[in-house]
Amino acid sequence: MNEFELIHRYFNNSNQDSSVIHGIGDDAAIIKPSKNYDLVMSVDTLLEDVHFPSTMPPQDIGYRCVAVNISDMAAMGAIPRWLTLALSLPEYNEKWLERFSIGLFTALEEYKVTLVGGDTTSGKQLTLTASITGEVKSDSAITRAGASVGDLIFITGTIGDAAAGLGLIGDTEDSSEDEKFLIERFARPSARSHIGQALVNIASAAIDVSDGLFADTKKLLDASLVGGFININDIPFSRSLINLFSQKERQQYALNGGDDYELLFTVPATKIHELDKIKNTAGISITQIGAVSEADGLECILDNKKIEYDHGGYLHFS
Amino acid sequence: MNEFELIHRYFNNSNQDSSVIHGIGDDAAIIKPSKNYDLVMSVDTLLEDVHFPSTMPPQDIGYRCVAVNISDMAAMGAIPRWLTLALSLPEYNEKWLERFSIGLFTALEEYKVTLVGGDTTSGKQLTLTASITGEVKSDSAITRAGASVGDLIFITGTIGDAAAGLGLIGDTEDSSEDEKFLIERFARPSARSHIGQALVNIASAAIDVSDGLFADTKKLLDASLVGGFININDIPFSRSLINLFSQKERQQYALNGGDDYELLFTVPATKIHELDKIKNTAGISITQIGAVSEADGLECILDNKKIEYDHGGYLHFS
Repeated sequence: MNEFELIHRYFNNSNQDSSVIHGIGDDAAIIKPSKNYDLVMSVDTLLEDVHFPSTMPPQDIGYRCVAVNISDMAAMGAIPRWLTLALSLPEYNEKWLERFSIGLFTALEEYKVTLVGGDTTSGKQLTLTASITGEVKSDSAITRAGASVGDLIFITGTIGDAAAGLGLIGDTEDSSEDEKFLIERFARPSARSHIGQALVNIASAAIDVSDGLFADTKKLLDASLVGGFININDIPFSRSLINLFSQKERQQYALNGGDDYELLFTVPATKIHELDKIKNTAGISITQIGAVSEADGLECILDNKKIEYDHGGYLHFS
Repeated sequence: MNEFELIHRYFNNSNQDSSVIHGIGDDAAIIKPSKNYDLVMSVDTLLEDVHFPSTMPPQDIGYRCVAVNISDMAAMGAIPRWLTLALSLPEYNEKWLERFSIGLFTALEEYKVTLVGGDTTSGKQLTLTASITGEVKSDSAITRAGASVGDLIFITGTIGDAAAGLGLIGDTEDSSEDEKFLIERFARPSARSHIGQALVNIASAAIDVSDGLFADTKKLLDASLVGGFININDIPFSRSLINLFSQKERQQYALNGGDDYELLFTVPATKIHELDKIKNTAGISITQIGAVSEADGLECILDNKKIEYDHGGYLHFS
């Protein structure tokens, strides 16, 4: 089977999307964008043994590579629409591809995204590069750069699960329910697509948490040219993380771990009542964990005391 | 230097493109598409030792990865606009990156394309995945699927140069002018962007020649559900290819070699006079090499005789 047959077999999206005039199989896909919408574009690469362990099931690899890209759209408030996927495989393995494509299309269908382009190559290392394009009403995309002093900092869902889950992958046979939950949080992250879209005109800035709460909050504040603080005692943890790990471990996972793909965002005080409506329909928690302030950079507060945090991303508890 | 600094240093496009509201550095770029245009999207991966030799200079690698993607846009008649690039590097090498980015931006500026997203990762094999989005007036993109019996088959430029040039890479120090020309045709292919755009509403179908004249003509005819023929004696060769290779070698390079990134397209007899106008301003040759016919598949004609061609893409001369 050559690469063209392979693309046809596994990557021919059955999804009916009227915006896609001409899908996979030509030099390029032809798409009709929506009127009065801006485009939002990003790209992400996942490498085996770098971004996910080689023991991760192919279904999860397929799912995850879509979800992490959609998370970027969520952080901009955009509706995810069209995805291209470049896949480099060390060997042609039909069983692997079949299982991979099941996970891939599960995520694509869940988020109503259409695969419009693919390229498969034979390489030394399993490498997945997905490039996604979304749409957002003209001039209403959320960026990292809009936070102002006085805005409150919020986070969706629970933090630290994915980093803890990553460490548990491999021996799923005997895993407890709590372990399975945490592994799933790494393997099949939930892109907060609906919440991101609902935050348009409410959030002043947003970012998805992929590198850890500290690093990503700092990126948002830096882009907005402001400072702020996180109250570590307010970070929301899942029941499973609480059951399996100590408070110190949880805080480390949350602040340094990454891979949670929750949304971190800021909301001006005047719009808090509008956020309440989103909270009621979000289906997951939305928690205030800090605020934008006159501080120089990002401060971490634990038990009402400022604590040190070094640039390597490691938290020094006193 | 971490990956974010690296992206900023080398991939921050200085290009002023008013459609790009928010460029590299956020979760995604924000772009304002043109009104009454469709989007055209494709993705291509280039791997070291697979798609280009490891001896190829980094400037050429950067140039080539942009040009081959723009060629896909040309084949659809689209204006190339925005590119994302995912780069996997075996080691961080500042000198390599600097030279690579020079070639990359040379091509981006030449074709007026803006880099709107990047992801750099550390992998085992040098891997470049570019995803490009272009624009074409609504409902006027050219596909592979529009050719009808009676249409004439044309090719831009000369064919076979790139495949011959690939074999000559490595010992450029002592290269003759002819050898240098052929190497350049592989290393820095010219995407026929302006000709592709001019062919809108004139060509009934088009494809860019990346896998060889035989394979790509066959793909166009298959997509159009028609047959046709190529007259091998009519294939245009460059002076350098003629100087260095025998007629048989030239024909093999042209039909089987690939990597030329010329446009192969069909034009109905009623539109030939419109094509003449394009010919006058194209700056390169546009040559008729065959026609769409009632044939079953693609026939190759040499010295007025039909010749055999096997499915492996190799031409059997009698």
